Amino acid sequence: MKFSVSGALSYQVKSAATFILNIHALRTPDQSVLKETFTVDPHSNSEELVAQTENRFVRFEVTESAYVNVNYHAVIDTSYKQTAGHLLTDVPVMQMDNTVIPYFFPSRYCQSDKLFRFAHNKFGKIDNAFEKVCALTDWIHDNVEYLSGSTTSQTSAYDTVTEQAGVCRDFAHLGIALCRALDIPARYFTGYAYQLNPPDFHACFEAFMGGQWVIFDATKLVPLNGLVKIATGRDAAEAAIASIFGDVTSTFISASCQLAADSFEPIYYDSNNPIGLTYL
Amino acid sequence: MKFSVSGALSYQVKSAATFILNIHALRTPDQSVLKETFTVDPHSNSEELVAQTENRFVRFEVTESAYVNVNYHAVIDTSYKQTAGHLLTDVPVMQMDNTVIPYFFPSRYCQSDKLFRFAHNKFGKIDNAFEKVCALTDWIHDNVEYLSGSTTSQTSAYDTVTEQAGVCRDFAHLGIALCRALDIPARYFTGYAYQLNPPDFHACFEAFMGGQWVIFDATKLVPLNGLVKIATGRDAAEAAIASIFGDVTSTFISASCQLAADSFEPIYYDSNNPIGLTYL
Amino acid sequence: MKFSVSGALSYQVKSAATFILNIHALRTPDQSVLKETFTVDPHSNSEELVAQTENRFVRFEVTESAYVNVNYHAVIDTSYKQTAGHLLTDVPVMQMDNTVIPYFFPSRYCQSDKLFRFAHNKFGKIDNAFEKVCALTDWIHDNVEYLSGSTTSQTSAYDTVTEQAGVCRDFAHLGIALCRALDIPARYFTGYAYQLNPPDFHACFEAFMGGQWVIFDATKLVPLNGLVKIATGRDAAEAAIASIFGDVTSTFISASCQLAADSFEPIYYDSNNPIGLTYL
Amino acid sequence: MKFSVSGALSYQVKSAATFILNIHALRTPDQSVLKETFTVDPHSNSEELVAQTENRFVRFEVTESAYVNVNYHAVIDTSYKQTAGHLLTDVPVMQMDNTVIPYFFPSRYCQSDKLFRFAHNKFGKIDNAFEKVCALTDWIHDNVEYLSGSTTSQTSAYDTVTEQAGVCRDFAHLGIALCRALDIPARYFTGYAYQLNPPDFHACFEAFMGGQWVIFDATKLVPLNGLVKIATGRDAAEAAIASIFGDVTSTFISASCQLAADSFEPIYYDSNNPIGLTYL
Repeated sequence: MKFSVSGALSYQVKSAATFILNIHALRTPDQSVLKETFTVDPHSNSEELVAQTENRFVRFEVTESAYVNVNYHAVIDTSYKQTAGHLLTDVPVMQMDNTVIPYFFPSRYCQSDKLFRFAHNKFGKIDNAFEKVCALTDWIHDNVEYLSGSTTSQTSAYDTVTEQAGVCRDFAHLGIALCRALDIPARYFTGYAYQLNPPDFHACFEAFMGGQWVIFDATKLVPLNGLVKIATGRDAAEAAIASIFGDVTSTFISASCQLAADSFEPIYYDSNNPIGLTYL
Repeated sequence: MKFSVSGALSYQVKSAATFILNIHALRTPDQSVLKETFTVDPHSNSEELVAQTENRFVRFEVTESAYVNVNYHAVIDTSYKQTAGHLLTDVPVMQMDNTVIPYFFPSRYCQSDKLFRFAHNKFGKIDNAFEKVCALTDWIHDNVEYLSGSTTSQTSAYDTVTEQAGVCRDFAHLGIALCRALDIPARYFTGYAYQLNPPDFHACFEAFMGGQWVIFDATKLVPLNGLVKIATGRDAAEAAIASIFGDVTSTFISASCQLAADSFEPIYYDSNNPIGLTYL
Repeated sequence: MKFSVSGALSYQVKSAATFILNIHALRTPDQSVLKETFTVDPHSNSEELVAQTENRFVRFEVTESAYVNVNYHAVIDTSYKQTAGHLLTDVPVMQMDNTVIPYFFPSRYCQSDKLFRFAHNKFGKIDNAFEKVCALTDWIHDNVEYLSGSTTSQTSAYDTVTEQAGVCRDFAHLGIALCRALDIPARYFTGYAYQLNPPDFHACFEAFMGGQWVIFDATKLVPLNGLVKIATGRDAAEAAIASIFGDVTSTFISASCQLAADSFEPIYYDSNNPIGLTYL
Repeated sequence: MKFSVSGALSYQVKSAATFILNIHALRTPDQSVLKETFTVDPHSNSEELVAQTENRFVRFEVTESAYVNVNYHAVIDTSYKQTAGHLLTDVPVMQMDNTVIPYFFPSRYCQSDKLFRFAHNKFGKIDNAFEKVCALTDWIHDNVEYLSGSTTSQTSAYDTVTEQAGVCRDFAHLGIALCRALDIPARYFTGYAYQLNPPDFHACFEAFMGGQWVIFDATKLVPLNGLVKIATGRDAAEAAIASIFGDVTSTFISASCQLAADSFEPIYYDSNNPIGLTYL
């Protein structure tokens, strides 16, 4: 499926500052970057850094006070794999790949160690991993109110589980924390999302089951097959859209994702027809 | 310098369980493992996993209820590098190596994002990175009481900065969080420590300056040249001695580090003669 | 109903210290103190203070290092009132008595302001106040594990709602916080409790409905008609068994409550026969 | 000293709602209310409630959706007492009046129990109570940034001590918590404040020493002799300007305090001439 995506960020830079942005679409077996432009205005040489997680960071410097505009445009071709839910079972820790293990552990915004009893009391009796994560995703959707401006960059899953309001980032963090509390590895996913309204960067999460990373989105705001992956990471601390060093104020941020193909059949998970979706 | 180290861990396993232990000494340019034995009794096949961080995890399974004893013995040859403090300056973010960048960001036990003003108010005016981290290390040492049993596995830097009591793990987390709040990458270090009294596994931290990872220990309990590195990581969530999946009770844990050489000149940092110490 | 109660507390006092204890049974219209002795050994003059809440504090000083034993024995005659659940409805704020209003507001261990959405999502649709508080009491009982030693004196309702383990104090704090989040005034209750096993001081809570303070106990460990009231307060900060000023270690604490009458019909709330119980 | 004060509050009431406002000036031996008007528009009968703390709450109901304006105007005559700092010493707990004791204990926004070591490490060695509280007030002033909008109604002293930004309410809560951690009773004070810029309701705190409640203000934004007392309480939970039950949005809030006398000599504490100020 082809999508045309773009991201625009504006900043008021008050003195020399360094930016590390993470808005480039990933290159993966299931995701090709067909065309891509990235500009910083006024011009600054930028450098791409590929992290151990394969996330594509771009780094540049602004050497004096300025109003800076960043633009990214790309055409992306994505595919995905569908797997019947009953095959998406827990992977025994003994068979877990080395690269998956870090996603068992608690992180800044996903304090799974504090949610152990909560997760087990609520979801511990469900046997199948896919069903279990669908159930916790449904619980988040039904109990947490999507409310712009209700949270800050310091809000974590431990807050959200009780305060029950937040944005996509908070929904994702809570999903991840509950998975990890249930010994299911889980990671944060940022991307461009087709049919997200209002358009913005989106966040959701992936959980590891049946040998693969299956996508989940507790906001249920977008079809799961309309995502363009930017990054994965332990949580928003590792996959932030922008990490900025210096005295800088963000003045504008937007993202969009348009269909660049003829037709699109939206996929949402359906408990009557349990099928998980994986982006390699 | 040669050290003979050992670790012993005992568990009551109540039903099938999987262990991921991280007690093996690292192999690095500055640290050779001359001899090494690792046993699980009753016998279980164990497998070594080398993480992206190069930490040497060992994984094994216990398939039924049992009392399990784990023993590790090794002879390690370590060296280190000393660098004059005035050369240990901040590395500009633009020149920061890709692999260092993750250590800028907050993690489960090191919520640097919440300590920004505190760190800047207290240490922001110190120019040289080595002096700055020595100052914050001194502050932790002077204000936080080393008190066994005062904290739990959920205690984080955000707690310790105010509650001001803890053990080596808490001292390390607070040091790391303060560094990151000051835009100095920092990571958790676990190891065997010569002259630690009472003997135990030890934790301290490394901060990145002058192009290298310099060791710091806010507990000031051991000489900095008597350390044998087991692991580094974002914090204790990524470099835990033991991660256990199953119904298991820890019944015993001990570690020791003996000098296997003739002489040892202990090194502690000295503000009159500022020299930093790096283990490659 | 007559009960014979006693409390015993021992302390190692390391230097001059002042104690404020709150272990005396309250004198109320429904509770007569028939006989009472209070001793401090070695002898210290103690003074009774009656707080605005009518709690009976006793204050004394120990002027030098000593091992101190405190004993309280009393025979208490209690009665209570039973009211049909359907009469126990919300009291409009406009009709709320002045003395009840403080129990609407959040306190140290009962952060009702952070539980608003949680409480409303779970219990907001229940109309009758008695049913609503029975439902939240049941939820606490079913989800929070009674686990000695799992919490500390700093644990609050905000922790317990997620961590889901605690002792009677934690059960009470969570009950109070959920009531207040639902605009039902609620207060902490400490007392001696018949049939509590093992014997100890007990804590539960009262909620205001139908014009009276109705007793609730989410631990469900004791019959509600076997309580001897010591104190009520916003939370354990205001109704602590002991507040100590000085360098003192608590070495022993026990409490007991024996029936001093012929027969006792235990009362627990029963959803098939909803009747609330009030101690004036 | 005569002041003319006024408070104006506007609300969008979406359905029937009850208000408890606390904006009336207290009547005390040192504070006379010479003239006073209070109006609710559209008209609603309001009722004054005098709390155990003697705070003057006013309660009224709005029975249907409406835009509601509340206005309070008063002329107040205040006096105060000045006491030399060296007389403002710790009151032994044995001599502490019954009504003062509740202000030793932690409350919702003043978790003194978590600040014990911090307070003792920083201020424990200062002997005189007035000097001690001046020192902690200075520390707050020097380290916490006054920053409108940086905190919410959930922010507490435990946050502020580390995050080091806030408004008058946060400065007061931190001052109170540090006092209580040092076994000095302390309480929240709300009032009208002369020369506050921009004009608003103000919050500061009182600490108990030398047998009286001495006023302190860590913001240092206003002269201490220009205050008109509205309420005192454990913290903002007990002395909120407005407690609202119902679906209501606050649309406007303002307060002012004008001098209604010829001259005014501003008093701020001065370490060279230590004198404490008490409003009876």
